[in-house]
Amino acid sequence: MRKILHPARAVALSFLLAIVAGTILLMLPASRADGLAAPWLTAFFTSVSAVCVTGLATVDTGTYWSTFGQAVIMVLFQIGGFGMMTAATLLGLMVNRSPRLRTRLVTQVETHSLGLGDVAQVARLVLVVTFTCEILIAIVLTLRLHLAYGLNWGDAAWSGLFHAVSAFNNAGFSIHADSLVRYAQDALILLPVMIAILIGGIGFPVLQDLRLKFRDPRHWSLHTKLTLLGTGILLVAGFVAVLAFESANPKTLGAMTMPEKILNAAFASVSARTAGFNTVDFGALTRDTWAAHYLLMFIGGGSAGTAGGVKVGTAVILVMLVLAEIRGHTDSEAFGRRIGASAHRQAITVLVLGSAMIVLGTMILLRVSDFPTDRIIFEVISAFGTVGLSTGITADLPPAGQLTLTALMYLGRVGTITLATSLVLAERRMPYRYPEEHPIVG
Amino acid sequence: MRKILHPARAVALSFLLAIVAGTILLMLPASRADGLAAPWLTAFFTSVSAVCVTGLATVDTGTYWSTFGQAVIMVLFQIGGFGMMTAATLLGLMVNRSPRLRTRLVTQVETHSLGLGDVAQVARLVLVVTFTCEILIAIVLTLRLHLAYGLNWGDAAWSGLFHAVSAFNNAGFSIHADSLVRYAQDALILLPVMIAILIGGIGFPVLQDLRLKFRDPRHWSLHTKLTLLGTGILLVAGFVAVLAFESANPKTLGAMTMPEKILNAAFASVSARTAGFNTVDFGALTRDTWAAHYLLMFIGGGSAGTAGGVKVGTAVILVMLVLAEIRGHTDSEAFGRRIGASAHRQAITVLVLGSAMIVLGTMILLRVSDFPTDRIIFEVISAFGTVGLSTGITADLPPAGQLTLTALMYLGRVGTITLATSLVLAERRMPYRYPEEHPIVG
Ligand SMILES: [K+]
Ligand SMILES: [K+]
Repeated sequence: MRKILHPARAVALSFLLAIVAGTILLMLPASRADGLAAPWLTAFFTSVSAVCVTGLATVDTGTYWSTFGQAVIMVLFQIGGFGMMTAATLLGLMVNRSPRLRTRLVTQVETHSLGLGDVAQVARLVLVVTFTCEILIAIVLTLRLHLAYGLNWGDAAWSGLFHAVSAFNNAGFSIHADSLVRYAQDALILLPVMIAILIGGIGFPVLQDLRLKFRDPRHWSLHTKLTLLGTGILLVAGFVAVLAFESANPKTLGAMTMPEKILNAAFASVSARTAGFNTVDFGALTRDTWAAHYLLMFIGGGSAGTAGGVKVGTAVILVMLVLAEIRGHTDSEAFGRRIGASAHRQAITVLVLGSAMIVLGTMILLRVSDFPTDRIIFEVISAFGTVGLSTGITADLPPAGQLTLTALMYLGRVGTITLATSLVLAERRMPYRYPEEHPIVG
Repeated sequence: MRKILHPARAVALSFLLAIVAGTILLMLPASRADGLAAPWLTAFFTSVSAVCVTGLATVDTGTYWSTFGQAVIMVLFQIGGFGMMTAATLLGLMVNRSPRLRTRLVTQVETHSLGLGDVAQVARLVLVVTFTCEILIAIVLTLRLHLAYGLNWGDAAWSGLFHAVSAFNNAGFSIHADSLVRYAQDALILLPVMIAILIGGIGFPVLQDLRLKFRDPRHWSLHTKLTLLGTGILLVAGFVAVLAFESANPKTLGAMTMPEKILNAAFASVSARTAGFNTVDFGALTRDTWAAHYLLMFIGGGSAGTAGGVKVGTAVILVMLVLAEIRGHTDSEAFGRRIGASAHRQAITVLVLGSAMIVLGTMILLRVSDFPTDRIIFEVISAFGTVGLSTGITADLPPAGQLTLTALMYLGRVGTITLATSLVLAERRMPYRYPEEHPIVG
């Protein structure tokens, strides 16, 4: 397989094909509620947003598209999420040097090569996790929607399934124009959605570790430990930030009771790093909360899952490196393991290239639109991190701006997972070494 | 010396003492034009801004302070600039492993120790460069101001000296409320100022290399080559950005002739990374130009000079690392030299901590004031990079905001040069090594 097509390139190409197919399907009159053919940009933007499990939308998903169109979108983000999780896991396997992680994921893998058996095995495991989780959450949501909101069984099941699949794949699409604002008081809707988001977004390698060695944390892989540590810190930080910055904002949490504030701040924190559902109007948030979201959305979720961003693991590796350097340690250590220079080089590369994309995207959107800078930065990071939250400017951006967002979604989603792989596969010892010279830093 | 007080800590303390002394002097009634004692916050802010060669001001330097007060400010930024250049060079010497750079700077230095003779030698060399440059530029400016603007010799000499010293030290203070806007059409004022800014901002190690081996570029140190390369790229990029984003702006370059546009765009590019003079109203710039300035101001100038920011060398090291990683090289090479992992770790640490300071500063200013986010980000990076440019909000920030800016100036200036030193001095091989494990990146 690798001889024919570089695996990272094969992944990038597959997602491109899915996007094209989705665009064509969404341009069919049957996809639109009013029976007319959607403009190509609307269909293309929606297809990119769905395949890249982002959730940004230039039209209202619930009213603009027919039920067929919504089903197409759901299939696209299901394929996108499943494809991403499987591809990233396989790519990770090809390059990963941790035998523990490798044997955990598949039984028989040699470095830098994967058999069809391995591919099938990983795909089967991902499928099992995906459908188990999605079906359970869909059942809970359907019951709640039927029993508490009086939806008939058909409508309840459709809404339950759509939001369960959207949540697990961190897609952020909702068939409601206001996302989940109407359920802001309902813990029995929000908690299942949060659980689906967290499971999908933590990444397959961590799920496998937890499934196989749940009671034996000492033997979790370093990746699992770093990701769980980082996720915990970010969840708490996001919760505290939203609660602190919005408690007094009458347009968001201000009018809620304390338990509702806690529920909605927790939901915002879980959803911020990549899921993209909202229970409050994000256009009405304080800009302090927007600024906190810049960070959360940029970092994103776990590797080889349905989450976007530069990934929690990448951020933790960099923070560990800085902490070690400050203490004067030449080795960066965590949980009794040394993080090698190669991981550092990859992490800094992902960070720098991700930042460069955001700077470039921001500069372009500042040029082509008149929206305030803070809303534009929010939109750009949301697209790059495939989060899908918006302060409400997506639909009003000019075509050049919307196309910029599609490029950010694709690069942010496909780029980050294929980049690291390409880096490792391309890596080779130099046949000669120049003498070292230490330039001045700072 | 090192036994008594950690040299980095000694430097940090010296600057603190200069700030306190400056505050006391500026609170004297003699320092103010109207003969009243200045409020402590005004005096403190001005003192920090002067000692840290920033140039941000909450009051108009030309009308608020008496000539005595202005002289105090000039002495403070002269001491600040000289102290910074000398201290950074000495700290760099203590930690630098490049024998070529070391022998270039002083004759007799052993690793991690400096004699009083070395200190005196470096201080003398810096003094010679400083005063030679300042006096020449002051003479040119004085002549121009007397001959072309009809100032009497005394006023012309005072203005010429003040702006020459301010330019060489990249202080950005001007005795005019509009900075250098009144000279926007005058190349004979702007070009000398630009030359002073570039010489002061490129850093002492580069100046020494150029002085001693001007005709022999092959034997320049790696630091010199990287800094010159990065500075050239940034100068061109800044020039192009300002010209592109402001040519059609009637409030800035729009009304100018093409030669004037080129002159003022070039001046803005030279001044942006740390000097902080302006020839156009920065409050009236397009936000695109502001965004370009975020980057330029964050990167700053050369190491061990009068410039701030994370430094050009740091940025180039990171870019080289990313380029090498993308090409699959495990070694990052430049000009026939290998840049070691230790330099990478330090560069990442400076980048991450600098970014963290800017994020924190921005969050605080968003909380305590109502100014638009893009102006606040500009102000924060300007303070951190000790640039001194402003969109015009400095004076109207509440005390908490102004104090935040003083902290950013001090940390941005003293922090970056002492941080790298502390990191290297503290660095030690670990007595044991954990087994390496490669976590997933991206
Ligand atoms: K999403
Ligand atoms: K300055």
